[in-house]
Amino acid sequence: MIKYYTINGIPTLVEKAVLHVSDLSILRGYGIFDFFIARQGHPLFWEDYAARFYRSAELTGLQIPFQEPELKAQVQNLLRINEMADAAVRFVLTGGYSEDAYTPPDTANMIIMLHDLPANIWESNGKGIKIISHDYQRDLPEVKTINYAMGIRMLPRIRAAGAQDLVYHDGGWIRESARSNFYLVDNHGAIVTPHEQILEGVTRKHVLELARQAGIRVEERDVHIDEINLATEAFFTSSTKGVMPVTHIDNREISDGPGPVSRQLQALFLKKVEAYLFFI
Amino acid sequence: MIKYYTINGIPTLVEKAVLHVSDLSILRGYGIFDFFIARQGHPLFWEDYAARFYRSAELTGLQIPFQEPELKAQVQNLLRINEMADAAVRFVLTGGYSEDAYTPPDTANMIIMLHDLPANIWESNGKGIKIISHDYQRDLPEVKTINYAMGIRMLPRIRAAGAQDLVYHDGGWIRESARSNFYLVDNHGAIVTPHEQILEGVTRKHVLELARQAGIRVEERDVHIDEINLATEAFFTSSTKGVMPVTHIDNREISDGPGPVSRQLQALFLKKVEAYLFFI
Repeated sequence: MIKYYTINGIPTLVEKAVLHVSDLSILRGYGIFDFFIARQGHPLFWEDYAARFYRSAELTGLQIPFQEPELKAQVQNLLRINEMADAAVRFVLTGGYSEDAYTPPDTANMIIMLHDLPANIWESNGKGIKIISHDYQRDLPEVKTINYAMGIRMLPRIRAAGAQDLVYHDGGWIRESARSNFYLVDNHGAIVTPHEQILEGVTRKHVLELARQAGIRVEERDVHIDEINLATEAFFTSSTKGVMPVTHIDNREISDGPGPVSRQLQALFLKKVEAYLFFI
Repeated sequence: MIKYYTINGIPTLVEKAVLHVSDLSILRGYGIFDFFIARQGHPLFWEDYAARFYRSAELTGLQIPFQEPELKAQVQNLLRINEMADAAVRFVLTGGYSEDAYTPPDTANMIIMLHDLPANIWESNGKGIKIISHDYQRDLPEVKTINYAMGIRMLPRIRAAGAQDLVYHDGGWIRESARSNFYLVDNHGAIVTPHEQILEGVTRKHVLELARQAGIRVEERDVHIDEINLATEAFFTSSTKGVMPVTHIDNREISDGPGPVSRQLQALFLKKVEAYLFFI
Protein backbone atom coordinates (compact mmCIF):
# COMPACT_ATOMS: atom_id res chain seq x y z
CA MET A 1 0.00 0.00 0.00
CA ILE A 2 1.66 3.20 -1.20
CA LYS A 3 1.08 6.01 1.29
CA TYR A 4 3.35 8.86 0.18
CA TYR A 5 4.49 10.60 -2.98
CA THR A 6 7.03 13.42 -3.04
CA ILE A 7 5.97 16.84 -4.35
CA ASN A 8 8.73 19.41 -4.79
CA GLY A 9 10.92 17.57 -2.33
CA ILE A 10 8.23 17.18 0.34
CA PRO A 11 6.79 13.77 1.23
CA THR A 12 3.02 14.12 0.77
CA LEU A 13 0.16 11.73 1.51
CA VAL A 14 -0.97 10.21 -1.79
CA GLU A 15 -4.51 11.54 -1.39
CA LYS A 16 -3.11 15.06 -0.94
CA ALA A 17 -0.74 14.90 -3.90
CA VAL A 18 -2.30 17.52 -6.15
CA LEU A 19 -1.31 20.27 -8.57
CA HIS A 20 -3.14 23.53 -9.06
CA VAL A 21 -5.01 23.71 -12.37
CA SER A 22 -2.75 26.56 -13.53
CA ASP A 23 0.05 24.02 -14.02
CA LEU A 24 1.28 23.89 -17.62
CA SER A 25 0.99 20.09 -17.76
CA ILE A 26 -2.77 20.43 -17.29
CA LEU A 27 -3.23 23.49 -19.50
CA ARG A 28 -0.59 22.85 -22.19
CA GLY A 29 0.67 19.27 -21.90
CA TYR A 30 4.08 20.76 -21.07
CA GLY A 31 6.23 18.42 -19.01
CA ILE A 32 8.68 15.54 -19.03
CA PHE A 33 8.94 12.37 -17.01
CA ASP A 34 11.00 9.28 -16.45
CA PHE A 35 10.32 5.84 -15.08
CA PHE A 36 12.53 3.17 -13.59
CA ILE A 37 12.61 0.22 -11.24
CA ALA A 38 13.96 0.14 -7.72
CA ARG A 39 15.05 -3.17 -6.20
CA GLN A 40 16.23 -3.73 -2.64
CA GLY A 41 15.90 0.02 -2.07
CA HIS A 42 18.19 0.89 -5.01
CA PRO A 43 17.09 2.60 -8.24
CA LEU A 44 18.35 0.31 -11.00
CA PHE A 45 20.71 1.89 -13.54
CA TRP A 46 20.23 5.20 -11.71
CA GLU A 47 23.11 6.91 -13.56
CA ASP A 48 21.42 6.28 -16.93
CA TYR A 49 17.95 7.36 -15.87
CA ALA A 50 19.19 10.46 -14.05
CA ALA A 51 21.28 11.49 -17.06
CA ARG A 52 18.31 11.10 -19.39
CA PHE A 53 15.97 12.99 -17.08
CA TYR A 54 18.31 15.99 -16.83
CA ARG A 55 18.86 15.89 -20.61
CA SER A 56 15.08 15.80 -21.27
CA ALA A 57 14.70 18.83 -19.00
CA GLU A 58 17.44 20.71 -20.81
CA LEU A 59 15.98 19.99 -24.26
CA THR A 60 12.53 21.21 -23.21
CA GLY A 61 13.78 24.31 -21.39
CA LEU A 62 12.72 23.02 -17.97
CA GLN A 63 14.76 23.28 -14.80
CA ILE A 64 14.87 20.33 -12.37
CA PRO A 65 14.79 22.02 -8.96
CA PHE A 66 17.20 19.52 -7.36
CA GLN A 67 20.71 18.29 -8.01
CA GLU A 68 21.12 14.63 -8.90
CA PRO A 69 22.36 13.36 -5.49
CA GLU A 70 19.48 15.15 -3.75
CA LEU A 71 16.98 13.60 -6.20
CA LYS A 72 18.40 10.14 -5.56
CA ALA A 73 18.16 10.70 -1.81
CA GLN A 74 14.50 11.70 -2.26
CA VAL A 75 13.81 8.44 -4.12
CA GLN A 76 15.49 6.37 -1.44
CA ASN A 77 13.70 8.26 1.33
CA LEU A 78 10.35 7.79 -0.41
CA LEU A 79 10.96 4.04 -0.66
CA ARG A 80 11.88 3.99 3.04
CA ILE A 81 8.85 5.89 4.34
CA ASN A 82 6.58 3.71 2.19
CA GLU A 83 8.39 0.65 3.60
CA MET A 84 9.00 -0.62 0.06
CA ALA A 85 12.24 -2.15 -1.14
CA ASP A 86 10.96 -2.91 -4.65
CA ALA A 87 8.84 -0.45 -6.64
CA ALA A 88 8.48 1.32 -9.95
CA VAL A 89 9.46 4.97 -9.61
CA ARG A 90 7.98 7.77 -11.71
CA PHE A 91 9.48 11.23 -12.01
CA VAL A 92 7.23 13.92 -13.49
CA LEU A 93 8.54 17.44 -14.05
CA THR A 94 5.76 19.77 -15.15
CA GLY A 95 5.90 23.26 -16.62
CA GLY A 96 4.80 24.79 -13.30
CA TYR A 97 2.17 27.33 -12.37
CA SER A 98 1.77 29.85 -15.19
CA GLU A 99 0.26 33.30 -14.67
CA ASP A 100 -1.04 33.61 -18.24
CA ALA A 101 -1.71 29.90 -18.90
CA TYR A 102 1.12 29.79 -21.44
CA THR A 103 4.42 31.35 -20.31
CA PRO A 104 6.47 29.01 -18.09
CA PRO A 105 7.30 30.34 -14.65
CA ASP A 106 10.84 30.09 -13.23
CA THR A 107 9.92 27.12 -11.05
CA ALA A 108 8.77 23.76 -12.39
CA ASN A 109 6.85 21.24 -10.27
CA MET A 110 8.64 17.98 -9.48
CA ILE A 111 6.62 14.89 -8.56
CA ILE A 112 7.96 11.50 -7.49
CA MET A 113 5.42 8.68 -7.48
CA LEU A 114 5.83 5.02 -6.63
CA HIS A 115 3.90 2.16 -8.21
CA ASP A 116 3.65 -1.47 -7.15
CA LEU A 117 5.83 -3.73 -9.25
CA PRO A 118 4.01 -6.28 -11.40
CA ALA A 119 4.62 -9.80 -10.09
CA ASN A 120 7.76 -11.42 -11.54
CA ILE A 121 8.58 -8.33 -13.54
CA TRP A 122 10.65 -9.25 -16.65
CA GLU A 123 10.13 -12.95 -16.05
CA SER A 124 6.46 -13.17 -16.95
CA ASN A 125 6.91 -12.51 -20.65
CA GLY A 126 5.98 -16.12 -21.32
CA LYS A 127 4.23 -16.41 -24.65
CA GLY A 128 5.10 -13.03 -26.09
CA ILE A 129 2.58 -10.48 -27.35
CA LYS A 130 0.67 -9.47 -30.42
CA ILE A 131 0.96 -5.90 -31.70
CA ILE A 132 -0.42 -3.69 -34.46
CA SER A 133 1.43 -1.08 -36.53
CA HIS A 134 0.40 2.55 -36.82
CA ASP A 135 1.74 5.40 -38.97
CA TYR A 136 2.88 8.07 -36.53
CA GLN A 137 6.03 9.98 -35.64
CA ARG A 138 6.37 11.20 -32.06
CA ASP A 139 7.13 14.87 -31.47
CA LEU A 140 10.61 15.44 -30.04
CA PRO A 141 11.28 11.70 -30.04
CA GLU A 142 14.60 12.02 -28.22
CA VAL A 143 12.90 13.61 -25.20
CA LYS A 144 10.76 11.72 -22.69
CA THR A 145 7.91 14.25 -22.84
CA ILE A 146 4.52 13.52 -21.30
CA ASN A 147 2.85 13.61 -24.74
CA TYR A 148 1.20 10.17 -25.02
CA ALA A 149 -2.12 11.32 -26.48
CA MET A 150 -1.68 9.13 -29.57
CA GLY A 151 -0.77 6.02 -27.59
CA ILE A 152 -3.82 6.44 -25.37
CA ARG A 153 -6.12 7.16 -28.31
CA MET A 154 -4.95 3.93 -29.92
CA LEU A 155 -5.85 1.74 -26.91
CA PRO A 156 -9.36 0.87 -28.16
CA ARG A 157 -7.97 -0.04 -31.60
CA ILE A 158 -5.28 -2.24 -30.03
CA ARG A 159 -7.93 -3.97 -27.95
CA ALA A 160 -10.24 -4.40 -30.94
CA ALA A 161 -7.43 -6.15 -32.83
CA GLY A 162 -6.91 -8.55 -29.93
CA ALA A 163 -3.43 -7.09 -29.53
CA GLN A 164 -1.52 -5.81 -26.47
CA ASP A 165 0.58 -3.00 -27.93
CA LEU A 166 1.59 -1.20 -31.13
CA VAL A 167 4.64 -0.16 -33.09
CA TYR A 168 4.80 3.26 -34.75
CA HIS A 169 6.27 3.71 -38.21
CA ASP A 170 6.74 6.98 -40.07
CA GLY A 171 5.62 6.29 -43.63
CA GLY A 172 6.98 2.74 -43.40
CA TRP A 173 10.10 3.51 -41.34
CA ILE A 174 9.78 1.69 -38.05
CA ARG A 175 10.30 3.77 -34.91
CA GLU A 176 9.16 2.38 -31.54
CA SER A 177 6.14 1.60 -29.45
CA ALA A 178 4.46 4.24 -27.30
CA ARG A 179 6.51 3.01 -24.34
CA SER A 180 9.10 0.54 -25.67
CA ASN A 181 11.93 0.24 -28.18
CA PHE A 182 11.50 -2.24 -31.02
CA TYR A 183 13.77 -4.86 -32.60
CA LEU A 184 13.71 -7.47 -35.31
CA VAL A 185 15.95 -10.49 -35.63
CA ASP A 186 16.75 -11.03 -39.31
CA ASN A 187 17.17 -14.36 -41.08
CA HIS A 188 20.93 -14.28 -40.37
CA GLY A 189 20.34 -13.93 -36.63
CA ALA A 190 21.32 -10.25 -36.48
CA ILE A 191 19.39 -7.78 -34.29
CA VAL A 192 18.07 -4.88 -36.37
CA THR A 193 16.73 -1.77 -34.61
CA PRO A 194 15.89 1.84 -35.54
CA HIS A 195 18.58 4.37 -34.58
CA GLU A 196 16.89 7.71 -35.22
CA GLN A 197 13.67 9.55 -34.29
CA ILE A 198 13.25 7.34 -31.24
CA LEU A 199 13.64 7.61 -27.50
CA GLU A 200 16.91 5.91 -26.59
CA GLY A 201 15.78 3.57 -23.86
CA VAL A 202 18.02 2.68 -20.97
CA THR A 203 17.00 -0.97 -21.28
CA ARG A 204 17.79 -0.68 -25.02
CA LYS A 205 21.31 0.51 -24.22
CA HIS A 206 21.99 -2.39 -21.85
CA VAL A 207 20.37 -5.06 -24.01
CA LEU A 208 22.31 -4.00 -27.14
CA GLU A 209 25.52 -3.99 -25.11
CA LEU A 210 24.74 -7.48 -23.81
CA ALA A 211 23.93 -8.71 -27.33
CA ARG A 212 27.25 -7.43 -28.68
CA GLN A 213 29.16 -8.98 -25.78
CA ALA A 214 27.43 -12.28 -26.56
CA GLY A 215 28.68 -12.08 -30.15
CA ILE A 216 25.30 -11.29 -31.69
CA ARG A 217 25.47 -8.89 -34.64
CA VAL A 218 23.59 -5.62 -33.96
CA GLU A 219 22.53 -3.22 -36.72
CA GLU A 220 21.31 0.20 -35.53
CA ARG A 221 19.98 1.74 -38.72
CA ASP A 222 16.81 2.72 -40.64
CA VAL A 223 14.44 -0.25 -40.53
CA HIS A 224 11.57 -0.57 -42.99
CA ILE A 225 8.29 -2.21 -42.07
CA ASP A 226 8.68 -4.61 -45.01
CA GLU A 227 11.64 -6.18 -43.21
CA ILE A 228 9.12 -7.75 -40.86
CA ASN A 229 8.40 -10.22 -43.65
CA LEU A 230 11.92 -11.66 -43.38
CA ALA A 231 12.24 -11.46 -39.60
CA THR A 232 12.52 -14.61 -37.52
CA GLU A 233 11.86 -12.84 -34.20
CA ALA A 234 10.69 -9.48 -32.90
CA PHE A 235 10.82 -8.00 -29.42
CA PHE A 236 10.41 -4.87 -27.32
CA THR A 237 12.56 -3.58 -24.51
CA SER A 238 11.46 -1.22 -21.76
CA SER A 239 12.02 -0.55 -18.08
CA THR A 240 8.92 -2.49 -17.10
CA LYS A 241 8.94 -5.11 -19.85
CA GLY A 242 12.64 -5.95 -19.85
CA VAL A 243 12.89 -8.01 -23.07
CA MET A 244 9.37 -8.75 -24.34
CA PRO A 245 8.97 -11.13 -27.32
CA VAL A 246 6.56 -9.98 -30.03
CA THR A 247 5.07 -12.94 -31.87
CA HIS A 248 2.49 -11.27 -34.13
CA ILE A 249 2.40 -7.93 -35.97
CA ASP A 250 -0.86 -7.00 -37.73
CA ASN A 251 -1.99 -10.63 -37.83
CA ARG A 252 1.29 -11.74 -39.33
CA GLU A 253 2.99 -14.42 -37.26
CA ILE A 254 6.70 -13.66 -36.74
CA SER A 255 7.48 -16.63 -34.54
CA ASP A 256 5.64 -19.39 -32.79
CA GLY A 257 6.36 -18.14 -29.25
CA PRO A 258 9.54 -16.43 -27.98
CA GLY A 259 12.53 -17.13 -30.20
CA PRO A 260 16.07 -18.10 -29.14
CA VAL A 261 17.60 -14.59 -29.41
CA SER A 262 14.79 -13.01 -27.34
CA ARG A 263 15.14 -15.73 -24.70
CA GLN A 264 18.90 -15.38 -24.60
CA LEU A 265 18.64 -11.60 -24.13
CA GLN A 266 15.99 -12.00 -21.42
CA ALA A 267 18.32 -14.24 -19.45
CA LEU A 268 21.31 -11.94 -19.98
CA PHE A 269 19.30 -8.89 -18.89
CA LEU A 270 18.16 -10.60 -15.68
CA LYS A 271 21.78 -11.48 -14.89
CA LYS A 272 22.81 -7.89 -15.57
CA VAL A 273 20.25 -6.62 -13.08
CA GLU A 274 21.47 -9.07 -10.45
CA ALA A 275 25.06 -7.99 -11.08
CA TYR A 276 24.09 -4.32 -10.76
CA LEU A 277 22.52 -4.98 -7.38
CA PHE A 278 25.44 -7.15 -6.25
CA PHE A 279 28.05 -4.51 -6.98
CA ILE A 280 26.14 -1.49 -5.69
CA MET B 1 -10.31 39.57 -9.04
CA ILE B 2 -11.33 36.06 -10.06
CA LYS B 3 -12.43 34.07 -7.01
CA TYR B 4 -13.96 30.85 -8.38
CA TYR B 5 -13.32 28.24 -11.04
CA THR B 6 -15.64 25.31 -11.73
CA ILE B 7 -14.31 21.77 -11.27
CA ASN B 8 -16.58 18.94 -12.44
CA GLY B 9 -19.61 21.21 -12.18
CA ILE B 10 -18.80 22.51 -8.70
CA PRO B 11 -17.80 26.14 -8.14
CA THR B 12 -14.46 25.98 -6.33
CA LEU B 13 -12.27 28.69 -4.81
CA VAL B 14 -9.40 29.38 -7.23
CA GLU B 15 -6.77 28.50 -4.61
CA LYS B 16 -8.47 25.13 -4.07
CA ALA B 17 -8.83 24.30 -7.77
CA VAL B 18 -6.51 21.31 -7.98
CA LEU B 19 -6.23 17.95 -9.72
CA HIS B 20 -4.70 14.83 -8.23
CA VAL B 21 -1.35 13.92 -9.79
CA SER B 22 -2.84 10.69 -11.17
CA ASP B 23 -4.69 12.79 -13.78
CA LEU B 24 -3.72 11.84 -17.34
CA SER B 25 -3.10 15.47 -18.31
CA ILE B 26 -0.25 15.58 -15.79
CA LEU B 27 1.09 12.09 -16.47
CA ARG B 28 0.40 11.78 -20.23
CA GLY B 29 -0.50 15.17 -21.65
CA TYR B 30 -3.90 13.70 -22.47
CA GLY B 31 -6.64 16.32 -22.63
CA ILE B 32 -8.43 18.88 -24.75
CA PHE B 33 -9.49 22.44 -24.15
CA ASP B 34 -11.26 25.40 -25.65
CA PHE B 35 -11.16 29.13 -25.11
CA PHE B 36 -13.60 31.90 -25.86
CA ILE B 37 -14.70 35.34 -24.81
CA ALA B 38 -17.76 36.26 -22.77
CA ARG B 39 -19.21 39.76 -23.05
CA GLN B 40 -22.09 41.15 -21.04
CA GLY B 41 -22.45 37.73 -19.40
CA HIS B 42 -22.81 35.92 -22.76
CA PRO B 43 -20.28 33.51 -24.25
CA LEU B 44 -19.63 34.87 -27.76
CA PHE B 45 -20.32 32.47 -30.63
CA TRP B 46 -21.21 29.81 -28.05
CA GLU B 47 -22.73 27.46 -30.64
CA ASP B 48 -19.42 27.31 -32.55
CA TYR B 49 -17.20 26.82 -29.52
CA ALA B 50 -19.47 24.25 -27.92
CA ALA B 51 -19.66 22.27 -31.19
CA ARG B 52 -15.87 22.28 -31.50
CA PHE B 53 -15.36 21.26 -27.88
CA TYR B 54 -17.69 18.26 -28.18
CA ARG B 55 -16.06 17.31 -31.49
CA SER B 56 -12.55 17.52 -29.96
CA ALA B 57 -13.72 15.25 -27.15
CA GLU B 58 -15.17 12.74 -29.57
CA LEU B 59 -12.02 12.65 -31.71
CA THR B 60 -9.83 12.03 -28.67
CA GLY B 61 -12.11 9.44 -27.08
CA LEU B 62 -12.99 11.66 -24.12
CA GLN B 63 -16.46 12.08 -22.66
CA ILE B 64 -17.63 15.55 -21.57
CA PRO B 65 -19.57 14.84 -18.36
CA PHE B 66 -22.25 17.48 -19.11
CA GLN B 67 -24.72 18.19 -21.88
CA GLU B 68 -24.25 21.45 -23.78
CA PRO B 69 -27.05 23.49 -22.10
CA GLU B 70 -25.74 22.45 -18.67
CA LEU B 71 -22.21 23.48 -19.64
CA LYS B 72 -23.44 26.88 -20.83
CA ALA B 73 -25.35 27.36 -17.57
CA GLN B 74 -22.15 26.56 -15.66
CA VAL B 75 -20.29 29.26 -17.62
CA GLN B 76 -22.97 31.84 -16.96
CA ASN B 77 -23.15 30.89 -13.30
CA LEU B 78 -19.38 31.14 -12.96
CA LEU B 79 -19.44 34.63 -14.49
CA ARG B 80 -22.22 35.61 -12.08
CA ILE B 81 -20.57 34.37 -8.87
CA ASN B 82 -17.33 36.07 -9.91
CA GLU B 83 -19.34 39.24 -10.60
CA MET B 84 -17.82 39.48 -14.08
CA ALA B 85 -19.72 40.35 -17.23
CA ASP B 86 -16.68 40.23 -19.51
CA ALA B 87 -14.03 37.52 -19.27
CA ALA B 88 -12.07 34.97 -21.22
CA VAL B 89 -13.36 31.47 -20.52
CA ARG B 90 -11.21 28.34 -20.65
CA PHE B 91 -12.59 24.81 -20.77
CA VAL B 92 -10.14 22.02 -19.99
CA LEU B 93 -11.20 18.39 -20.22
CA THR B 94 -8.46 16.09 -18.94
CA GLY B 95 -8.09 12.34 -19.25
CA GLY B 96 -9.10 11.85 -15.61
CA TYR B 97 -7.60 9.87 -12.75
CA SER B 98 -5.94 6.72 -14.08
CA GLU B 99 -5.26 3.69 -11.92
CA ASP B 100 -2.25 2.54 -13.94
CA ALA B 101 -1.02 5.97 -15.09
CA TYR B 102 -1.99 5.16 -18.71
CA THR B 103 -5.47 3.71 -19.19
CA PRO B 104 -8.21 6.37 -19.19
CA PRO B 105 -10.89 5.94 -16.55
CA ASP B 106 -14.59 6.28 -17.42
CA THR B 107 -14.77 9.80 -16.00
CA ALA B 108 -12.82 12.75 -17.35
CA ASN B 109 -12.16 15.89 -15.30
CA MET B 110 -13.82 19.09 -16.52
CA ILE B 111 -12.39 22.46 -15.49
CA ILE B 112 -13.82 25.89 -16.28
CA MET B 113 -11.49 28.81 -15.63
CA LEU B 114 -11.99 32.53 -16.15
CA HIS B 115 -9.28 34.99 -17.12
CA ASP B 116 -9.35 38.79 -17.11
CA LEU B 117 -9.83 40.21 -20.58
CA PRO B 118 -6.91 42.24 -21.94
CA ALA B 119 -7.84 45.92 -22.18
CA ASN B 120 -9.50 46.83 -25.50
CA ILE B 121 -9.36 43.28 -26.72
CA TRP B 122 -9.31 43.15 -30.56
CA GLU B 123 -8.88 46.92 -30.79
CA SER B 124 -5.32 47.16 -29.55
CA ASN B 125 -3.73 45.51 -32.55
CA GLY B 126 -2.25 48.87 -33.52
CA LYS B 127 1.02 48.41 -35.33
CA GLY B 128 0.81 44.70 -36.04
CA ILE B 129 3.37 42.13 -34.98
CA LYS B 130 6.56 40.48 -36.09
CA ILE B 131 6.71 36.69 -36.31
CA ILE B 132 9.19 33.94 -37.15
CA SER B 133 8.56 30.74 -39.12
CA HIS B 134 9.27 27.26 -37.82
CA ASP B 135 9.10 23.85 -39.49
CA TYR B 136 6.59 21.84 -37.48
CA GLN B 137 3.32 20.00 -37.97
CA ARG B 138 0.99 19.76 -34.98
CA ASP B 139 -0.28 16.34 -33.94
CA LEU B 140 -4.01 15.88 -34.58
CA PRO B 141 -4.27 19.43 -35.94
CA GLU B 142 -8.04 19.34 -36.22
CA VAL B 143 -8.40 18.75 -32.48
CA LYS B 144 -7.83 21.39 -29.82
CA THR B 145 -5.59 19.17 -27.69
CA ILE B 146 -3.54 20.56 -24.81
CA ASN B 147 -0.30 19.68 -26.59
CA TYR B 148 1.52 23.04 -26.84
CA ALA B 149 4.97 21.82 -25.87
CA MET B 150 6.49 23.06 -29.17
CA GLY B 151 4.91 26.51 -28.91
CA ILE B 152 6.21 26.94 -25.38
CA ARG B 153 9.67 25.64 -26.24
CA MET B 154 9.85 28.21 -29.05
CA LEU B 155 9.13 31.19 -26.75
CA PRO B 156 12.81 31.97 -26.04
CA ARG B 157 13.62 31.81 -29.77
CA ILE B 158 10.71 34.12 -30.60
CA ARG B 159 11.92 36.56 -27.95
CA ALA B 160 15.52 36.35 -29.18
CA ALA B 161 14.34 37.30 -32.70
CA GLY B 162 12.53 40.37 -31.33
CA ALA B 163 9.28 38.76 -32.50
CA GLN B 164 5.93 38.19 -30.78
CA ASP B 165 4.73 34.94 -32.34
CA LEU B 166 5.48 32.28 -34.94
CA VAL B 167 3.92 30.52 -37.89
CA TYR B 168 4.42 26.78 -38.39
CA HIS B 169 5.04 25.30 -41.82
CA ASP B 170 5.40 21.63 -42.69
CA GLY B 171 8.34 21.44 -45.07
CA GLY B 172 7.37 24.78 -46.62
CA TRP B 173 3.59 24.34 -46.46
CA ILE B 174 2.18 27.00 -44.16
CA ARG B 175 -0.10 25.81 -41.37
CA GLU B 176 -0.90 28.14 -38.47
CA SER B 177 0.54 29.69 -35.36
CA ALA B 178 0.55 27.87 -32.01
CA ARG B 179 -2.69 29.66 -31.12
CA SER B 180 -3.92 31.47 -34.27
CA ASN B 181 -4.86 30.87 -37.89
CA PHE B 182 -2.75 32.52 -40.56
CA TYR B 183 -3.56 34.43 -43.77
CA LEU B 184 -1.79 36.21 -46.59
CA VAL B 185 -3.26 38.85 -48.86
CA ASP B 186 -1.85 38.34 -52.35
CA ASN B 187 -0.96 41.02 -54.88
CA HIS B 188 -4.48 40.84 -56.35
CA GLY B 189 -6.09 41.57 -52.98
CA ALA B 190 -7.27 37.97 -52.40
CA ILE B 191 -7.07 36.34 -48.97
CA VAL B 192 -5.08 33.11 -49.11
CA THR B 193 -5.18 30.71 -46.17
CA PRO B 194 -4.28 27.04 -45.46
CA HIS B 195 -7.24 24.67 -45.50
CA GLU B 196 -5.76 21.41 -44.20
CA GLN B 197 -3.75 20.15 -41.21
CA ILE B 198 -4.88 23.13 -39.14
CA LEU B 199 -7.26 23.84 -36.32
CA GLU B 200 -10.34 25.44 -37.83
CA GLY B 201 -10.71 28.53 -35.68
CA VAL B 202 -14.10 29.98 -34.85
CA THR B 203 -12.78 33.49 -35.51
CA ARG B 204 -11.40 32.14 -38.81
CA LYS B 205 -14.85 30.92 -39.80
CA HIS B 206 -16.49 34.28 -39.07
CA VAL B 207 -13.74 36.39 -40.61
CA LEU B 208 -13.73 34.39 -43.85
CA GLU B 209 -17.52 34.65 -44.02
CA LEU B 210 -17.29 38.43 -43.49
CA ALA B 211 -14.60 38.72 -46.15
CA ARG B 212 -16.71 36.87 -48.72
CA GLN B 213 -19.77 38.97 -47.86
CA ALA B 214 -17.65 42.10 -48.42
CA GLY B 215 -16.72 40.83 -51.90
CA ILE B 216 -13.13 39.91 -51.05
CA ARG B 217 -11.86 36.83 -52.85
CA VAL B 218 -10.95 34.01 -50.41
CA GLU B 219 -8.76 31.06 -51.38
CA GLU B 220 -8.67 28.19 -48.87
CA ARG B 221 -5.93 25.97 -50.25
CA ASP B 222 -2.34 24.77 -49.78
CA VAL B 223 -0.17 27.84 -49.19
CA HIS B 224 3.60 27.70 -49.66
CA ILE B 225 5.97 29.78 -47.57
CA ASP B 226 7.46 31.28 -50.75
CA GLU B 227 4.13 33.03 -51.37
CA ILE B 228 5.08 35.36 -48.53
CA ASN B 229 7.42 37.05 -51.02
CA LEU B 230 4.46 38.22 -53.12
CA ALA B 231 2.09 39.03 -50.24
CA THR B 232 0.99 42.59 -49.57
CA GLU B 233 -0.43 41.83 -46.12
CA ALA B 234 -0.43 39.05 -43.56
CA PHE B 235 -2.56 38.53 -40.47
CA PHE B 236 -3.64 36.13 -37.75
CA THR B 237 -7.08 35.47 -36.33
CA SER B 238 -7.86 34.03 -32.92
CA SER B 239 -10.39 34.33 -30.13
CA THR B 240 -8.19 36.70 -28.17
CA LYS B 241 -6.50 38.49 -31.06
CA GLY B 242 -9.50 38.99 -33.31
CA VAL B 243 -7.77 40.08 -36.55
CA MET B 244 -4.08 40.73 -35.84
CA PRO B 245 -1.92 42.23 -38.62
CA VAL B 246 1.48 40.60 -39.13
CA THR B 247 3.96 43.05 -40.58
CA HIS B 248 7.21 41.07 -40.51
CA ILE B 249 8.02 37.38 -41.03
CA ASP B 250 11.62 36.27 -40.38
CA ASN B 251 12.93 39.83 -40.83
CA ARG B 252 11.10 40.23 -44.12
CA GLU B 253 8.78 43.23 -44.12
CA ILE B 254 5.34 42.35 -45.52
CA SER B 255 3.72 45.72 -44.99
CA ASP B 256 4.54 49.00 -43.32
CA GLY B 257 1.88 48.68 -40.60
CA PRO B 258 -1.59 47.12 -40.86
CA GLY B 259 -2.81 46.96 -44.46
CA PRO B 260 -6.26 47.90 -45.80
CA VAL B 261 -7.68 44.33 -45.91
CA SER B 262 -6.61 43.60 -42.32
CA ARG B 263 -8.10 46.87 -41.13
CA GLN B 264 -11.36 46.29 -43.00
CA LEU B 265 -11.69 42.79 -41.48
CA GLN B 266 -10.91 44.11 -38.00
CA ALA B 267 -13.76 46.60 -38.32
CA LEU B 268 -16.16 44.01 -39.76
CA PHE B 269 -15.35 41.53 -36.96
CA LEU B 270 -16.00 44.11 -34.25
CA LYS B 271 -19.37 44.88 -35.85
CA LYS B 272 -20.16 41.17 -36.01
CA VAL B 273 -19.49 40.82 -32.28
CA GLU B 274 -21.76 43.79 -31.52
CA ALA B 275 -24.50 42.31 -33.69
CA TYR B 276 -24.16 38.92 -31.95
CA LEU B 277 -24.62 40.58 -28.56
CA PHE B 278 -27.49 42.73 -29.85
CA PHE B 279 -29.51 39.80 -31.17
CA ILE B 280 -28.84 37.41 -28.30
